[in-house]
Amino acid sequence: MRRLLPLMLLALLTAPPAFSDAGMWTFHDFPHELLKREHGADIDSAWLDRVRTSTIRLSNCTASFISPEGLILTNHHCAEACLDEHSTGEQNLVRAGFLARTRDKELKCGAQNADVLVGMENVSARVLAAIKGLDDKTANETRKKTLAQLEQACEDASKGAASGALKCESVDLYQGGQYWLYKYHRYDDVRLVFAPERGIAAFGGDPDNFQFPRWCLDMSVLRAYGADGKPATTPHFLALRADGPQDKELVFVSGHPGSTQRLLTVAQLQTLRDVDLPRWLLRASELRGRYIQFGKTGAEANRIVEDPLNGLENAIKVRRNQLEALLDERLMQRKRTEEAALRAKVAADPALAGTGDPWADIARAEVRYRELSLPYTFLEQGAGFNSRLFAYARTLVRGAAERSKANTDRLHEYRETALPRVQKRLLAPVPVYPQLEKLTLSFSLERMREWLGPDAPAVRQLMSKESPDSLTASAVDGSKLADPAVRKQLWEGGQAAIDASHDPMIELARAVDAEARTVRKQQEDEVEAPVQAAAQKIARVRFKVYGTSVAPDATFTLRLNFGTVQGWREGSQEVEPFTHTARLFERATGQEPFKVPDSWLAVKAQLDPQTRFDLSTNNDIVGGNSGSPLIDTKGRLVGLMFDGNIHSIAGDYWFDPKLNRAVAVDTPIILEALRKVYKAKELLAEMGEK
Amino acid sequence: MRRLLPLMLLALLTAPPAFSDAGMWTFHDFPHELLKREHGADIDSAWLDRVRTSTIRLSNCTASFISPEGLILTNHHCAEACLDEHSTGEQNLVRAGFLARTRDKELKCGAQNADVLVGMENVSARVLAAIKGLDDKTANETRKKTLAQLEQACEDASKGAASGALKCESVDLYQGGQYWLYKYHRYDDVRLVFAPERGIAAFGGDPDNFQFPRWCLDMSVLRAYGADGKPATTPHFLALRADGPQDKELVFVSGHPGSTQRLLTVAQLQTLRDVDLPRWLLRASELRGRYIQFGKTGAEANRIVEDPLNGLENAIKVRRNQLEALLDERLMQRKRTEEAALRAKVAADPALAGTGDPWADIARAEVRYRELSLPYTFLEQGAGFNSRLFAYARTLVRGAAERSKANTDRLHEYRETALPRVQKRLLAPVPVYPQLEKLTLSFSLERMREWLGPDAPAVRQLMSKESPDSLTASAVDGSKLADPAVRKQLWEGGQAAIDASHDPMIELARAVDAEARTVRKQQEDEVEAPVQAAAQKIARVRFKVYGTSVAPDATFTLRLNFGTVQGWREGSQEVEPFTHTARLFERATGQEPFKVPDSWLAVKAQLDPQTRFDLSTNNDIVGGNSGSPLIDTKGRLVGLMFDGNIHSIAGDYWFDPKLNRAVAVDTPIILEALRKVYKAKELLAEMGEK
Repeated sequence: MRRLLPLMLLALLTAPPAFSDAGMWTFHDFPHELLKREHGADIDSAWLDRVRTSTIRLSNCTASFISPEGLILTNHHCAEACLDEHSTGEQNLVRAGFLARTRDKELKCGAQNADVLVGMENVSARVLAAIKGLDDKTANETRKKTLAQLEQACEDASKGAASGALKCESVDLYQGGQYWLYKYHRYDDVRLVFAPERGIAAFGGDPDNFQFPRWCLDMSVLRAYGADGKPATTPHFLALRADGPQDKELVFVSGHPGSTQRLLTVAQLQTLRDVDLPRWLLRASELRGRYIQFGKTGAEANRIVEDPLNGLENAIKVRRNQLEALLDERLMQRKRTEEAALRAKVAADPALAGTGDPWADIARAEVRYRELSLPYTFLEQGAGFNSRLFAYARTLVRGAAERSKANTDRLHEYRETALPRVQKRLLAPVPVYPQLEKLTLSFSLERMREWLGPDAPAVRQLMSKESPDSLTASAVDGSKLADPAVRKQLWEGGQAAIDASHDPMIELARAVDAEARTVRKQQEDEVEAPVQAAAQKIARVRFKVYGTSVAPDATFTLRLNFGTVQGWREGSQEVEPFTHTARLFERATGQEPFKVPDSWLAVKAQLDPQTRFDLSTNNDIVGGNSGSPLIDTKGRLVGLMFDGNIHSIAGDYWFDPKLNRAVAVDTPIILEALRKVYKAKELLAEMGEK
Repeated sequence: MRRLLPLMLLALLTAPPAFSDAGMWTFHDFPHELLKREHGADIDSAWLDRVRTSTIRLSNCTASFISPEGLILTNHHCAEACLDEHSTGEQNLVRAGFLARTRDKELKCGAQNADVLVGMENVSARVLAAIKGLDDKTANETRKKTLAQLEQACEDASKGAASGALKCESVDLYQGGQYWLYKYHRYDDVRLVFAPERGIAAFGGDPDNFQFPRWCLDMSVLRAYGADGKPATTPHFLALRADGPQDKELVFVSGHPGSTQRLLTVAQLQTLRDVDLPRWLLRASELRGRYIQFGKTGAEANRIVEDPLNGLENAIKVRRNQLEALLDERLMQRKRTEEAALRAKVAADPALAGTGDPWADIARAEVRYRELSLPYTFLEQGAGFNSRLFAYARTLVRGAAERSKANTDRLHEYRETALPRVQKRLLAPVPVYPQLEKLTLSFSLERMREWLGPDAPAVRQLMSKESPDSLTASAVDGSKLADPAVRKQLWEGGQAAIDASHDPMIELARAVDAEARTVRKQQEDEVEAPVQAAAQKIARVRFKVYGTSVAPDATFTLRLNFGTVQGWREGSQEVEPFTHTARLFERATGQEPFKVPDSWLAVKAQLDPQTRFDLSTNNDIVGGNSGSPLIDTKGRLVGLMFDGNIHSIAGDYWFDPKLNRAVAVDTPIILEALRKVYKAKELLAEMGEK
C-alpha cells in the first residue's frame, strides 16, 4: 500500500513513479481492478476463500495446510521453539533435525496454536457511534471497552454452533479508520512432523540473514490435531507445484505481516529514530554479547542460548536497518512531502473543515511520550525484568487482580477472550533455564538502574541494599514458578493464592506492579489517547482523498499481496532471482554457520547441482510473513517465504520497488531434500508426491 | 570558545545570550581582556608560566606537581592501568589501593610518561608557505612532511642542550588555521605512590558516572623520576589550599582536553550522528555484554576484565550522550544558523572572494567517507582486530617497513620523533591475558564479518575455512608476542626478522596489511585531504570575522579555562555545588558499586560528617581533563577535576552554560582521607600539611 500513497502524491507534484506491487491487502478489500490493470490477471472469490482458509496464523509466524489431513508447512525458525522444547543436553533437535515417520511419533508443541481466519465483520459503525463526541481519554477507554464487548459477544454466539467455537479478535485498520472483528477457527494441538538440521535451514546464520543469494532450506512441517486428538480434517490446502515459479511470473503471498509503520507521521518516525530504536539497539547489543559469552562456557550453555540468541540477532539486524532507513534523508523528505500534501488537502477542502491539526496533536503527544518512555519501557513493558519467571509472576499477579474485575474494566490482555491464550502460555511445560534467567534478569535490572538512575523510586525500592546480581540470585533460586503445577495452582487460586504467596518472583512482580500500572495509565491517557484521536482524523482525511486504494498498515492479520519473481540490481551488480545447489557446496567453509550437515555431504553425489534452491520476488512482506506460502494464479504453492533482502527492512516505512525483495525456499529443493536427503517417503506421499 | 561563537552570531540575529565562561584557551592566546571584563580579575605571565610548568600531560590524562620533589596528583582512574599492571590473582591493587610509605616502595608504571610543556613556537607561516598553490592531495602530504621535518629539527636542536633533550610535537589549531610546535620535557620514569580503594575512588561506579551530586575520592599520587633514577626536582608545583574554594569563586582549570568537535560543519556532525556514533555504540555495547559475562566466570576473570570494562562503560556513556546531543534539533538548528551566518559573511565580503564553498566541499568528502568508513574502521583502525597481541604485531610489521623509509615518507606514527613512544608501548612489560585476547579478537572478527559481509575480500581471505573462534584460538595460542623479549627481538631485527617470523599474530597482521594501507590511503587522499583544505578555508574566514576571540577545538594540548564554583537547576530541582561525607554513608548499599571500603567504615566515627567531598563548577572541560588541577587566582590547588555532569557530554559540540558542569574532588576530603583513613603522614608532610 505504501507505494500507492506516494504514487498518488507524487502524481500531483511530479511525474508518475515507476510501477511496483507494494501493498498488503486485506481479503475483504482486495484490489481486483489494480491487479487487472497491472498484470492483466484476476482471482475469483473461490480462489480467495480457498487461499484464506488454507493459510494459518501461528503464534509467531504464518503457515499453510499442504494436505487434507492437517499437514502444515512453515519455516524452520518458526518451529525452533518447539524443537527446543523437546531438546535436552543429550539430544539437540534444533541442530540434529527431526522426522516422525509415523503419526504417533509426532511431538506436541506446547505453546503453539494454529488459527484459520473463517469470518470477517466490519464493526466500524458501532465503534464510531460509541465514542462519538467523547474527549480523547474517555474515547480511548470507551473504544477499548466496546471492542471487548464485541469480541465477547462474538465468541459467546459461536459457542455450541455446529462449526465449533470461534476466537474473535478486533482489528484496527488504518490507525482507527476501520474496525473489524476477525473470527478464527483455532487448533490448540499442533505437533512437529519434520525439521531439517539448523545447519541447512539457516545456512550462513546471522552473517547471511537478510542477504540474497542464499542457500537455506528454512522449512519445517507440523500437523494440526482436532480436539479429539486426531489429525485435523482440512479439505482446503495448497498443492505443491514441483517445478516452482518462472522468472517474472505473477505470484501471491498470503500471510500475516506483523507490523508496518508506513502511515505514521513524521513526528512519530522521529521518535522511533531518535529514541526507541537507538535505545533498544544498545540494550539488545549488550544482551547479544552476554548471550554469546555465556554460550562459550559449555556445550549445554551453548545449546540453551542458541534459540534466544538467534531471535535476538535477527531482531538486531532488523532494527539496525530500520534505523538506517530512518536516518536516510530521502525517506524523511518523502514523508514530509506526503504529510504536507495531505495537510494542504485539509486546508483546501471545506468538507474537511473542523479536522484541526492532528499532525500537531501527535507531535505534542510524542513530546510527552519521550518523557514517559524510560519508565514505561523498563517498568511496564518489562525491559527491566527480562525473565521468563518474572513474566509468569506478572501474569499471575495481574491475572488475579484483573480477573476479579468486570470484563470491560480489565487491561485488554486479560479480557475473557484473551484468557485462553494467556493461560496456555502460562501453563505450557516449556523448560526454564535458571542460568539463562539469571543472565537476562541481572542484565535488565542493571540497565534499568543505569537508565532510570540509582535514585529513581523503583530502583531505590528494589536495590537500596541489593545489587542486580544479588537480587536476581535470590529471586531465581528461590522461585518455584518454573514448575507448571505451581503456576497452575497460583492461577486457579486467584487473588487469595497470590496474596498468600512468598515466592520471591511473585514478590518482585507485586513490588513494581503499582508503579508500572501508573506509568501505563499515563501513557494510555496522555500519549495513546490523543494519538488515537488524531490518527483517526488523519485516517478520515486519507479515506476522503484516497479511499481504500491505499492498503492499511500491517497488524499481524491476514493479508494478500501480489508481485513477480524478480532479481534486482545491487550497485553495478545484477542479482539473479534463483540460486542452485552447486553453489551451496562451494560456499561451505566447514565451520559454523557455513557448515553443510553430514546428511547432505553423504548424498552429495546423488543431488542434482542444478536444482533450484532459494528465490527472490518483489512481493511486499515483513516479519510475521515468515512461513507464508508463495502461490501462483492457479492457487498452487510455488515457494515458502522465509526472509527478505537487506533493503526489505526499510519496508517498515516505505516500499522501494527497485530494491525491496522477498526471499523464499523454492519448491524443487523442498522435494529434492525430502526425497534424497531425508528419505521422507510418507511425507511426500501425503503431499501427493511420489 | 563555543559560547563566543554563538554569542557573536546571535548578537547579529537576536538579543545577546546569557554570560558564560566556555573556552579552552591556549596559554599563548589567553584572553586577559575577557577575564577582566567578566570577572574583574587578571593573572600575570608569571602565574601562567608557573601553572603551565606545574601541569603535566600523562599518556591518558592530566596531572600536576604538588611538591618540589616530583610528587604528582591525578585521578585514580588515570592510574588504574598502573595498578592493574602490579596486580595479580592474589593481590588486586585496583580494589585494595596502595600506599608506598618509603620511596623505595614506589611502583614503576611501565607505560606511563609525564610531559611538561616548556616551549611553544608558532610555525604557521612555514607550513602555509610549503603548501601554497598545491592541490588538496599533495598539500595534505606536504603538510605532514613539513610538520615531520619541523618536529625532527626541533628535537635535534635540543639534544645536548643544558636543559635536556625535548619532545617536539606539532599542533594543528583551528582545523589548520594555526600550526605550532609544542616542546615538552618528558619524564620517562613515573611511579605509583598512593591510590585509595576503587570502591571509594569510584563510589557509585558506572551508574553514578557523569552524575552529580557525587562522593568519589577519585585521586592517586604518582612521582616523576629523573634519568638518574632519583625523584625529579620540580621547583614549580601547586600548593593545596586546605579549605577548598568558595561558592561562586573564580577558578581555573589547567589541563589537556582531549578533543572537541565544536567547529565541525553540519555535514560532519551528521556523519557522526548517522554513521560513526551509532555503529560504535552497537559494537561497544556488545563488547560490554561480553566483558560482563566473562567477568562472572570467576574471580580472576573478574579482576582482569575490570579495567577494560570500566574504560568501555565510561566511553559508552560519553558516546551515548554525544549521540543524544546530536539528535537534539536545537543543537543542529544552532549549527545550521552559525554556518549560514558565516556563509553570508563570505558572500558579502569582497576580501573573501575566492573562498568558494568549503562547506559543500566537506559535504562531498563526507559522502565518500560514508562509503569508505566500514573497511577503514575495521581494517585500518583495528575494529576488526581488537587485541593487544595484534596491536603488537601490527606495530612490529609496520614498524619494520616504515623504519626502512626516509623519515618524511613514513606513516606519521612511525616518524623518528614518534618512535620512542611507540617503542615504549611495544616493550612495556604489561600483562597479556590470553582469555581476554580471545574474547576481544573473536568478537571483533565476528563483527567484521557481519558488517563487511562474508564475501568481502579480507573476510574471505581470513575466514574461508575458519570461524572467528578457530582463527582466534590459533592466533592467540600460537603467538609468542606476549613476551616483551620476543617483541624486542622482532623490533630490533627489523624487516628480516619480520619476514622470517611464523608467529601467527605476525602472519595475521601481515595478511591484512596491504588492504588496510590501501583503504587508509583512500581515506587520506579522498576524505582527509579535501576536508583539510576546506577546513583551512573556513578557518581563514572565521579568523577574518572573529579573530582569536574564539578558542580552538581541543586537541589534547595544554589549555587554560576559567569559571566559577556553581551548582545548577535540574528541571525543578536546585543542585548544590558541594557534597559532604555524611551522605556518602547514607547512600551506601553495602553492594558494589555502592559499597564503602572497610578502611572508611573502620574510622567512620572519627570522620567529620560535614567535610566537603566533591564539588561542581561551570568550567568548560572534556575527557583528557581528568586529573586537572582546579586553581584559584593565587595559583593554589583547590580541587582535582575528575568528571562532568551528564550535560557536560554535549560539550563536545556546544557549551550550555545553564547545564554544563565540571566535577572535582574537593581538597578538604583529600586531606581528611590521607590523614584519618590512610594515615599517610609522609605524603602529607611532603605536601606541606601536618
